[in-house]
Amino acid sequence: MHLALVRVDDGEQFAVREDGEAGWCLLRSLGAEPRDLPEAVRAAAEVSATALASAPRERSVTLGAVARSARKILAVGLNYRSHVEETGMVRPDAPIIFVKYSSSVIGPTDAIRVDPSITTQVDYEAELAVVIGRSARRVSEADALAHVFGYAVANDVSARDLQAADSQISRSKSLDTFGPIGPWITTADAVPDPQSLTIRSFVDDEPRQDSTTSLMLYSVAELISYLSRTTTLEPGDVILTGTPKGVGLGFTPPRFLSPGSTVRCEVSSLGEISNPVLLDPSDELS
Amino acid sequence: MHLALVRVDDGEQFAVREDGEAGWCLLRSLGAEPRDLPEAVRAAAEVSATALASAPRERSVTLGAVARSARKILAVGLNYRSHVEETGMVRPDAPIIFVKYSSSVIGPTDAIRVDPSITTQVDYEAELAVVIGRSARRVSEADALAHVFGYAVANDVSARDLQAADSQISRSKSLDTFGPIGPWITTADAVPDPQSLTIRSFVDDEPRQDSTTSLMLYSVAELISYLSRTTTLEPGDVILTGTPKGVGLGFTPPRFLSPGSTVRCEVSSLGEISNPVLLDPSDELS
Repeated sequence: MHLALVRVDDGEQFAVREDGEAGWCLLRSLGAEPRDLPEAVRAAAEVSATALASAPRERSVTLGAVARSARKILAVGLNYRSHVEETGMVRPDAPIIFVKYSSSVIGPTDAIRVDPSITTQVDYEAELAVVIGRSARRVSEADALAHVFGYAVANDVSARDLQAADSQISRSKSLDTFGPIGPWITTADAVPDPQSLTIRSFVDDEPRQDSTTSLMLYSVAELISYLSRTTTLEPGDVILTGTPKGVGLGFTPPRFLSPGSTVRCEVSSLGEISNPVLLDPSDELS
Repeated sequence: MHLALVRVDDGEQFAVREDGEAGWCLLRSLGAEPRDLPEAVRAAAEVSATALASAPRERSVTLGAVARSARKILAVGLNYRSHVEETGMVRPDAPIIFVKYSSSVIGPTDAIRVDPSITTQVDYEAELAVVIGRSARRVSEADALAHVFGYAVANDVSARDLQAADSQISRSKSLDTFGPIGPWITTADAVPDPQSLTIRSFVDDEPRQDSTTSLMLYSVAELISYLSRTTTLEPGDVILTGTPKGVGLGFTPPRFLSPGSTVRCEVSSLGEISNPVLLDPSDELS
């Protein structure tokens, strides 16, 4: 099953559909009224195939930012050896955890807006996103995947100049619009092994990243277990699992995103997100 | 006015009262039904003195974790010179921004739970917390304070051993229960100058920190302006503005928090939070 946020006449609504179906079924037409991702994850987990089969469909929708209302988005740095090497960093001896502010999240076709007075080094990072379904506190690696609701595609857009200037990197990865996630969340039952997915990115259709989640230094199960040692992971929380080689910073000279480009990220069986990069003229200070 | 989360018979409710009043007025009895801090901030801003004066009161309540449902909590490192010196760090040339996960937030008398198998260096940091009331994007310093809803007392509890091991410090400051904030949020109209507040902490009534917000390296207005350059600050977002000298790490030898102690933080005119430190035996991995 897929969970999405869809734009309908009276605003945005969470909706579900089975894989391959054309239309989306609003959760409210199944009796739920989720107002944020945590509630939508809980509601979607209760949807029965029978109820879904006979429910009305929305056939013409625009997809919104399904993860915009996540309570926390934890992200992992340097989680592929190939990316560690291209950045000239050293392999971490524990997962590097930072935060992507949920206020940066946009939908699968929304624009990444770049203000050159703030940053001139905007980079892409295709990633597998994991969405928690059941509260996870101190779970073992063996049990970790049972706490996953589903998976999605993410682009951990990063302002490399701010990232280099700041000791703490969350800010440089959380500019408004720097968090495309989508196109929807695919439930875990449709993803037998999260460590055997291909992950790719393209800028204006030119291949940039092409790897597999089998090359993560810390697997999804290890990350959930590690994070859950110190913090309770709650339904609707998101984990961004790191990016492989091929980011703009890894080229000589670097190949950052320019206004007018479109960056597309895809993970096998999870769909793709494709976001234009637009110039965001610096507003006058109010 | 004060905004709090109060525990009543049927759960937790946001409530308001004028300074000095004994009883709390539930926002739902004023016609609002806020379900999280962003909604409560918006609802509280609309309460009229007339409506409040004649509304029913809850006189016997326990205070809950008013900031637990904040969408983002941004925190500032090394924002007092005296604390920079005691930690042996250098004065930052821009604000150091990290994130306190909202899942770590507890109420003004709730227990800080410490598992010695995870950390043995738990430290306190009394701070002024700022709660945003109006959306702030690229605001000037001159206009910044007009975007503040109110202020509260925070304790940025930190696991110093994890903080020293991690390059990114958000994780070590976001363990479950490591975010006491309260006792309530005092609206900005009652705080004429956020840079002239005394800030103190005590461990088992022994004074540890005693300073003033006049000594911040970056003022509240500067921080709001700085943060709002790259991220939109939204109603209910919280900013923790850093801590002055006197943390446990600053003593020789260091004086960390031990189970059985109580740590109290206070900021003039905003009240105090007093949190016992309890042992949290390591659960077996499930």
